Amino acid sequence: MIDSPYLVHPGKKVHLPKIPADDTGPFKHKDDAHKSSDKIIAKLSQLQEVLYAEQKRSLLIILQAMDTGGKDGTIRHVFTGVNPAGCSVVSFKAPSSEELAHDYLWRIHRATPARGMITIFNRSQYESVLIERVHKLVPTDVWKRRYDHINAFEKLLTDEGTTILKFFLHISKNEQLKRLDARLDDPDKNWKSDPNDMVERQSWNQYQSAYEDALTNCSTSHAPWYIVPADHKWFRNHVVGDIIVRTMEHMKLKYPIKPAMRKIPD
Amino acid sequence: MIDSPYLVHPGKKVHLPKIPADDTGPFKHKDDAHKSSDKIIAKLSQLQEVLYAEQKRSLLIILQAMDTGGKDGTIRHVFTGVNPAGCSVVSFKAPSSEELAHDYLWRIHRATPARGMITIFNRSQYESVLIERVHKLVPTDVWKRRYDHINAFEKLLTDEGTTILKFFLHISKNEQLKRLDARLDDPDKNWKSDPNDMVERQSWNQYQSAYEDALTNCSTSHAPWYIVPADHKWFRNHVVGDIIVRTMEHMKLKYPIKPAMRKIPD
Repeated sequence: MIDSPYLVHPGKKVHLPKIPADDTGPFKHKDDAHKSSDKIIAKLSQLQEVLYAEQKRSLLIILQAMDTGGKDGTIRHVFTGVNPAGCSVVSFKAPSSEELAHDYLWRIHRATPARGMITIFNRSQYESVLIERVHKLVPTDVWKRRYDHINAFEKLLTDEGTTILKFFLHISKNEQLKRLDARLDDPDKNWKSDPNDMVERQSWNQYQSAYEDALTNCSTSHAPWYIVPADHKWFRNHVVGDIIVRTMEHMKLKYPIKPAMRKIPD
Repeated sequence: MIDSPYLVHPGKKVHLPKIPADDTGPFKHKDDAHKSSDKIIAKLSQLQEVLYAEQKRSLLIILQAMDTGGKDGTIRHVFTGVNPAGCSVVSFKAPSSEELAHDYLWRIHRATPARGMITIFNRSQYESVLIERVHKLVPTDVWKRRYDHINAFEKLLTDEGTTILKFFLHISKNEQLKRLDARLDDPDKNWKSDPNDMVERQSWNQYQSAYEDALTNCSTSHAPWYIVPADHKWFRNHVVGDIIVRTMEHMKLKYPIKPAMRKIPD
């Protein structure tokens, strides 16, 4: 578990309104972070190669956020330099009928990374204690026991060789409004607009409460949550990239040494 | 959890040598059980139809045994009358390279029953605390923590609508020798013989110890183990069938009532 000002310490109760979404850490301006961010991206690409070559362990990165929180943008900015042969993104949308016929972790488990791989979950198992709770799709006793399932599931994965990092991209309610408006106005962003976004925005407080419980109950030493200030996209990318790189450095990845082979004689 | 003289009460330590493998319960002879066994098989077929129609819950049956313990025979005898559209058997053999690239529950979770279905596991997640332990394929600390994973995994499944029944078909060491010899001598059984069977038999005691730990650590109120006396095949089938039927009766399965529809007018 890599330390950071944004780590949710296991056992500590999260209160989102107290956490500034517009924090920029040691940086005053985007340009100050520029050099550092470039280094992070280069380093991540190197580390991913060793993870892939080692073929023993894997990395699972979970991104959750309110609508417009920047999951897609984070993936694009942090991972664009990484070899896609060793890195895949899985977006969890509304479950299919086959998925609904199984427990809610069934489709999640199927999508977990193979040894050597980085897998990024755009939404995740946490939707089952977020949208399903907020929209009352399941009774209270059902979603309440899911925190234990999820913690046990993540323990299994980490015990068996997967490192897990979970990022909540934390935006303010004002920033969301700005971004929703931009989706309507900007022709490059309009394709992402969805009439449902404004409806979901009316449940802002219920979602924030559901997030607080998920972050509080499921930040563990084996699979920690980080709450990333995400009003400034450049800082959000910096924080996510920095935590991933430091976590991978901590894994002490090594190129495997294969037994020496004689060259085939002419 | 359906009671039975063969139930492993959660928390109770299992000592296999004390448990007779040639028990035949209230029956003196195969013919005494005949009527009762026929009724069980007919009842099972009825119950399966309602489970399938209800489409809300599922049943997972796990069969484990020493070699020649009778997993295949149990499936053949108990389930032959059941509609295969609502019942499937999954046999877990040596894992593929894709399966080995994931945690040991990955392939198990994929194979769990959809709502409405009965799935029978011929071998299961328990191989990861049996063969992998006996042949030292993983270090001690790795297989030791797997009991917790397995219990949590089975809790998830039951919480989300799957009823789990686990049967250990318990045969004596002498009975195994007889059956291995029969495989060599009987032309109808010869196809099942495997030179590896005699090698595995040398690890009899280590396997029995590994089974004792699995049965002790993983018989829970949500997913109980039953130790079925299996030296007599007819009694083994009777016990397994009886527990399945009583469990399904306890589920209070009901045909769903669909809203009345008017007949299409001529």
